[in-house]
Amino acid sequence: MISSAHELVVDTLGPCRVDSPLSARIAARSASPHAVSEDDRVLYDLALSHAAARGLPAAELPGFEPSVARRKIYFDPAKTRAGIVTCGGLCPGLNNVIRGLVQQLTNQYGVHSVIGFRNGYQGFIASYGHSVVELTPELVQGIEDRGGTILGTSRGQQDPEEVVDCLERMNVNILFVIGGDGSMRGAIKIAQAARERGLKIAVIGVPKTIDNDIPLIDHSFGFQTAIDEAARFLQAAHTEALSAPNGVGLVKLMGREAGFIACYAALASGDADYVLIPEVPFQLDGDDGFLAHVRRRIAERGRVVIVLAEGAGQEHVPEPSRGLDASGNLKFHDIGTFIKERLIADFAAAGVPLNIRYFDPSYAIRSVPANSFDSVHCLRLAHGAVHAGMSGRTATVVGRYHGRLVNVPMSLIVSDRKKVDQGSDLWQSVLEVTDQPSRIGRCLPEAALA
Amino acid sequence: MISSAHELVVDTLGPCRVDSPLSARIAARSASPHAVSEDDRVLYDLALSHAAARGLPAAELPGFEPSVARRKIYFDPAKTRAGIVTCGGLCPGLNNVIRGLVQQLTNQYGVHSVIGFRNGYQGFIASYGHSVVELTPELVQGIEDRGGTILGTSRGQQDPEEVVDCLERMNVNILFVIGGDGSMRGAIKIAQAARERGLKIAVIGVPKTIDNDIPLIDHSFGFQTAIDEAARFLQAAHTEALSAPNGVGLVKLMGREAGFIACYAALASGDADYVLIPEVPFQLDGDDGFLAHVRRRIAERGRVVIVLAEGAGQEHVPEPSRGLDASGNLKFHDIGTFIKERLIADFAAAGVPLNIRYFDPSYAIRSVPANSFDSVHCLRLAHGAVHAGMSGRTATVVGRYHGRLVNVPMSLIVSDRKKVDQGSDLWQSVLEVTDQPSRIGRCLPEAALA
Amino acid sequence: MISSAHELVVDTLGPCRVDSPLSARIAARSASPHAVSEDDRVLYDLALSHAAARGLPAAELPGFEPSVARRKIYFDPAKTRAGIVTCGGLCPGLNNVIRGLVQQLTNQYGVHSVIGFRNGYQGFIASYGHSVVELTPELVQGIEDRGGTILGTSRGQQDPEEVVDCLERMNVNILFVIGGDGSMRGAIKIAQAARERGLKIAVIGVPKTIDNDIPLIDHSFGFQTAIDEAARFLQAAHTEALSAPNGVGLVKLMGREAGFIACYAALASGDADYVLIPEVPFQLDGDDGFLAHVRRRIAERGRVVIVLAEGAGQEHVPEPSRGLDASGNLKFHDIGTFIKERLIADFAAAGVPLNIRYFDPSYAIRSVPANSFDSVHCLRLAHGAVHAGMSGRTATVVGRYHGRLVNVPMSLIVSDRKKVDQGSDLWQSVLEVTDQPSRIGRCLPEAALA
Amino acid sequence: MISSAHELVVDTLGPCRVDSPLSARIAARSASPHAVSEDDRVLYDLALSHAAARGLPAAELPGFEPSVARRKIYFDPAKTRAGIVTCGGLCPGLNNVIRGLVQQLTNQYGVHSVIGFRNGYQGFIASYGHSVVELTPELVQGIEDRGGTILGTSRGQQDPEEVVDCLERMNVNILFVIGGDGSMRGAIKIAQAARERGLKIAVIGVPKTIDNDIPLIDHSFGFQTAIDEAARFLQAAHTEALSAPNGVGLVKLMGREAGFIACYAALASGDADYVLIPEVPFQLDGDDGFLAHVRRRIAERGRVVIVLAEGAGQEHVPEPSRGLDASGNLKFHDIGTFIKERLIADFAAAGVPLNIRYFDPSYAIRSVPANSFDSVHCLRLAHGAVHAGMSGRTATVVGRYHGRLVNVPMSLIVSDRKKVDQGSDLWQSVLEVTDQPSRIGRCLPEAALA
Repeated sequence: MISSAHELVVDTLGPCRVDSPLSARIAARSASPHAVSEDDRVLYDLALSHAAARGLPAAELPGFEPSVARRKIYFDPAKTRAGIVTCGGLCPGLNNVIRGLVQQLTNQYGVHSVIGFRNGYQGFIASYGHSVVELTPELVQGIEDRGGTILGTSRGQQDPEEVVDCLERMNVNILFVIGGDGSMRGAIKIAQAARERGLKIAVIGVPKTIDNDIPLIDHSFGFQTAIDEAARFLQAAHTEALSAPNGVGLVKLMGREAGFIACYAALASGDADYVLIPEVPFQLDGDDGFLAHVRRRIAERGRVVIVLAEGAGQEHVPEPSRGLDASGNLKFHDIGTFIKERLIADFAAAGVPLNIRYFDPSYAIRSVPANSFDSVHCLRLAHGAVHAGMSGRTATVVGRYHGRLVNVPMSLIVSDRKKVDQGSDLWQSVLEVTDQPSRIGRCLPEAALA
Repeated sequence: MISSAHELVVDTLGPCRVDSPLSARIAARSASPHAVSEDDRVLYDLALSHAAARGLPAAELPGFEPSVARRKIYFDPAKTRAGIVTCGGLCPGLNNVIRGLVQQLTNQYGVHSVIGFRNGYQGFIASYGHSVVELTPELVQGIEDRGGTILGTSRGQQDPEEVVDCLERMNVNILFVIGGDGSMRGAIKIAQAARERGLKIAVIGVPKTIDNDIPLIDHSFGFQTAIDEAARFLQAAHTEALSAPNGVGLVKLMGREAGFIACYAALASGDADYVLIPEVPFQLDGDDGFLAHVRRRIAERGRVVIVLAEGAGQEHVPEPSRGLDASGNLKFHDIGTFIKERLIADFAAAGVPLNIRYFDPSYAIRSVPANSFDSVHCLRLAHGAVHAGMSGRTATVVGRYHGRLVNVPMSLIVSDRKKVDQGSDLWQSVLEVTDQPSRIGRCLPEAALA
Repeated sequence: MISSAHELVVDTLGPCRVDSPLSARIAARSASPHAVSEDDRVLYDLALSHAAARGLPAAELPGFEPSVARRKIYFDPAKTRAGIVTCGGLCPGLNNVIRGLVQQLTNQYGVHSVIGFRNGYQGFIASYGHSVVELTPELVQGIEDRGGTILGTSRGQQDPEEVVDCLERMNVNILFVIGGDGSMRGAIKIAQAARERGLKIAVIGVPKTIDNDIPLIDHSFGFQTAIDEAARFLQAAHTEALSAPNGVGLVKLMGREAGFIACYAALASGDADYVLIPEVPFQLDGDDGFLAHVRRRIAERGRVVIVLAEGAGQEHVPEPSRGLDASGNLKFHDIGTFIKERLIADFAAAGVPLNIRYFDPSYAIRSVPANSFDSVHCLRLAHGAVHAGMSGRTATVVGRYHGRLVNVPMSLIVSDRKKVDQGSDLWQSVLEVTDQPSRIGRCLPEAALA
Repeated sequence: MISSAHELVVDTLGPCRVDSPLSARIAARSASPHAVSEDDRVLYDLALSHAAARGLPAAELPGFEPSVARRKIYFDPAKTRAGIVTCGGLCPGLNNVIRGLVQQLTNQYGVHSVIGFRNGYQGFIASYGHSVVELTPELVQGIEDRGGTILGTSRGQQDPEEVVDCLERMNVNILFVIGGDGSMRGAIKIAQAARERGLKIAVIGVPKTIDNDIPLIDHSFGFQTAIDEAARFLQAAHTEALSAPNGVGLVKLMGREAGFIACYAALASGDADYVLIPEVPFQLDGDDGFLAHVRRRIAERGRVVIVLAEGAGQEHVPEPSRGLDASGNLKFHDIGTFIKERLIADFAAAGVPLNIRYFDPSYAIRSVPANSFDSVHCLRLAHGAVHAGMSGRTATVVGRYHGRLVNVPMSLIVSDRKKVDQGSDLWQSVLEVTDQPSRIGRCLPEAALA
């Protein structure tokens, strides 16, 4: 235990008087989840009890409830039935969470019944005709070795009243919803509808987003596995680019609103020349634009690898009407194919040969089993979720906050999205590894993206 | 930004009045790096600037300096020469750190020369006759695809004065030491010796321990890769155990003083029946002992998988004299072979057939290339280390603290070891997954281990 | 050594009198590379010396020259320079072949110089301006850990006279061409042009086709690796199909004229419901057609996995003009996208929900490093090629024939393509594993495909 | 179809008059399964029907019966019950064979019942108390994703009369035995005992040997997967050896009587300096011996990787008494530990530092799931075995012969072992890749090994 601030001061050789070659790149940084300015400090204490021991006014300090086993619980296990549903797109680790929930509920708490609802929120609605499945520790043994979800999934919302009808009819006391922010909005409505009927049904969420864009949470499950897989495709793109004269490998990765997968995969592989993400607009045409920059870099390096988040550069795609998908999300233009075609046209116009290979591996990435990191992460999220549900929390999700498993009000995590901060160490590292300019061209104002 | 503590309070269905079936297992928990008690809170703010904004007494709050690029630096890049040395046992990611250091120093800061010293601290000592290698971005391109270290490594200390002689003779301004706690103790002495001579040589450490037992630091590089690999061997042990009547798969993993690899690998694979670690003593003989417990469990389950950290159960191995290895560490008894032989003898005595398969995969685990997680981690540690060195920090290491890259005084991280806390969520999860008793037998008092 | 036919007769319980449930599926089989009829026999002897020992008329029996080291060779190593070129599309193992050639030529034969020409046949033509590279054992050490080719590659032919000009100018005695059948046609012309000028230049081919469609040769290098990778995508498609109601996973694999990759990948994964290959036409529309069959099977099984070789069903794609690619091959319609859109339209018309996921992983498959099988195969092909070249063979390729490394006249392997035989055990196994009908619908006559 | 011997003659530049640098290494070669002399030819025709078409005396030519589906079969599927047993050590692919047998028997032939016997031949003997398991296509779905055998296995023989009692009692008509040569000897006795009782029980073998030492058969299932895995450990050994001064990586691989795994793994990895196998004796001590050779090579290359088959150099291990294991095989001395200790002693005596790392990965290799190559191979062996069994063959195994699936009398494959031939291309390639001498030292006469 550190007792004074002085103990954490590092030794220096003397004052810093030389201008850093990186100073141009260091944007005005403030303390955000991914950045902290050079004069700031990262606090040693992370628990309220520590703060209190230092005589700080504990009551006023915002803090998360830890997601741990509690001595007293709300539900009597012998009379409790739990339900599990998986919603939205596939993500590595879904089966690990299911297994963790079932084993913890059954083996540790002695809950008498765990039921799986099939194919997302459709599973509660009679008209779809999906059956339910009784989940036992034997049945879930080994499911984590497979990707996807044994329960099936679907996008889109269903009427919360119909869902509660089903929960009431089947005597479900705790519902675990594994899904993205759309699903969590649905879960909030389900919790509300149950409460309005006076039903004691706990609704606990395990937030799922392969894009890692849930606010307040260190990293979402499946994200590390996605990076592992994405890096394989960057490797392939690099090989293709290296093996042909004027080779370009172009890889579109997941990331509708946040470019975390693109950034981390580029850092993991070390082979990317450009990372284009939704958070950082870029100019396409003109001498300062992306196309001309690629042509110059091909002339220098002989090959180029481009990593593209699917939400990047949407403002460049001409097509006007986008519509909504089944989850109610705005449909995205296919920026990958668009950029590929623009590069082909641009090189052709310049009379420069081009060997471009386009990769669109999203389905292949999201359907693999969880790696070790996510296996452990999913297991512990599942344990935390069971603790939360058994102790009567509701409209609550579990997640890691600065490494700790905590309970977070569901409403907080659907209120916003986490994004790649241009002042963050992460984006700095991406710029350093790719050696791409901080901004490509004189970009559109960010407002134009809204 | 959260403005009041109230916003983080989760919703509950009502008061908890039922005794939890897990309450027996919940030890007296306090806020440690891996645990926090149920009535505590995980603080929302992590930066001093946040604390100050809440009106807290910033000056008194201990905090780490962030490891970021700074506007003013200490060394003039055009006149700076850096040196790199890797010490101690292999660990996934060594080459990634080397590549990250060289590329950041050369491409981003414009440092004019980076030199690699071969085979650990031996590389500074003329009598060993090891050559040095000029490290360029071209030379380190792609080295991260291979395990090990291109610089070679060795265990053991060398005379700090001779090391400083070499640094002085070669005009090295910044020395990067990638090594374990023994090497960091050496690095402190080198920094001291340089200072006593009035030399402006910065000594920056990148702490390496595959066991993840460095205090104050979230996780050391290579640790996640080690778990990935270790889980493969647990899978093999599980397959062997399942494929023979009364099959036992016994896996010895790294972990001299801390059982993190054993714990995480067991959670990642989900197949372990027992995890034995140095932190949790166990009784071997007698009806309550481990041997009898295994026999009973074989009778129930037909097969058993045992994961053993190499430092577990040392008190049971009879051999009296242990000596020191080249790094000055106490040599360990081979608990794996010992337990294997005791199981064979015990089953034979009981007339029960036994098919035991023993795995000792440490060299195969530590020599693989880094996975994606560690690749990114190593790259960013390298960036942080370069920022620290260029800005004149010395006797300083870089590491992650609650997710942030920070500078830590070298003396703090060699003062102690991180261990698996028996009250932690981690150990709770291990107990839940293996279903092994909290304590096996009436154990020796912990003092007996000292 | 077997001395009489009797020794190989197996024991039977008695005569076979029951009609086999499989007899409908057993087409009229004849002895082809992949099939042999039930009354035929597989000969025990495979070497001419064996045949002669049985008193057979050796002179009349066609046989291949083994590709082995010979006591007397044609070229004096100390005065020999060899050249290497890689042509056409990427294929796992190219770097292994390059490494094997260089090491064998240099270390074993003592050849004084080995030169690599860049980017396929372009590398011989001055106007492209590609440099050459001196290939040494040190330079090729470890290149086999990467996919692609360190020499680069390109499609298309160049003027053989210009190529020979270059070989003559650079004093190249042996040229190793690693490429497909187009490249081998080019190599024949180069050998001819050299001969016509009276130059003693040996041209040796290492046939490359990821599709495994080279006649007379057991399997081409890279093919097994391609199956390994393709099976991963089938697994992903299976996961996607299982995780959604009415899920369809559609995977387009390589195979322009021959469906070997599709067949083997389907057998390796065990998860395919349909395998569509160029050799087996199918009806698309109507009650007996493919679309209706898929709809029926979805109703039965809930999900469907379809594997499609890129050359399958070309007759269904309406687009009239196809043109030639840079290698002079007829461009192929994109059958994958076409089938995907037809399925979407067909299910929509029938009012059946559909969750279809389309995978087009060819670039990701072909760019990986060789697996162990292909690593060994490439190494031994390289050894055989060097033996052939050093002993003065020309216009000759090396390959395995029934397991033996042999020399084959280049003209023989460009004369035809190997195809999946519908009477073969391979296709039978595919039908058995997928349970798809032998023929889907009343198909077009095969002539219609020509 | 080739019509004349002339068509297969390759083109040459002229007569060979230069002595080959390799001629010293080319032993007196004769046509064996792995070698063919330079003046021999590999016959084009492989089917009896082809031979007959050339007017050869078909009746006298030894040939294997193809293992294909037949129009008439012996057993009536609706009244047939099959049994499956797996015996001996683990081998990748066991579950694939089980799955293939069950699916083919049930789905294709309509056999009414398939029963699995547990834990090898013990499963037939009441006193062991092992239950049997009804094997359905649903139950075996996905088992191929796991290593080992779902049926369990054991070593050793059981009384054939008791086995037949069990088969008779349970009305088993066809017994599939998946096992090594010991198990096949047992299967022959079971077939005999059944025949003597007048029972119509077909006994079909699927030969299993991870060492690939079954005679007459191209390669046994699991062998390619074993090489894949073994190559990983060679890679680890290479990394360890490279990362320390005077590093030695020593890897003991499977191969009691035949060194195929060691040879192929060395070729696949390309990193071995020595391959020691049972077929090639070596001198250990003295100036010409192995120990001195390693010391000289360490001085030259700085590091050495040694691959050792477990049966190599048995004559050097002093311990006199070896005994038999449960399968009746002679127990082997642990040559790996022995060589490791001799190297340590030898280097110490010479005053040369040594960093040796020893790997003994056999259990980790044999317990992995089959790779794609073996998955396909196992599936087709299973199909062939079912065809053989349903058509009333008995005391018969299935295997590939020069690429074809054939039926082979069980007695032939237990009569001998396949070994690495020192005149073969395989061993030549190993010598070329390692650059080790053909013979190390003045070796013991081969007779001394018997």
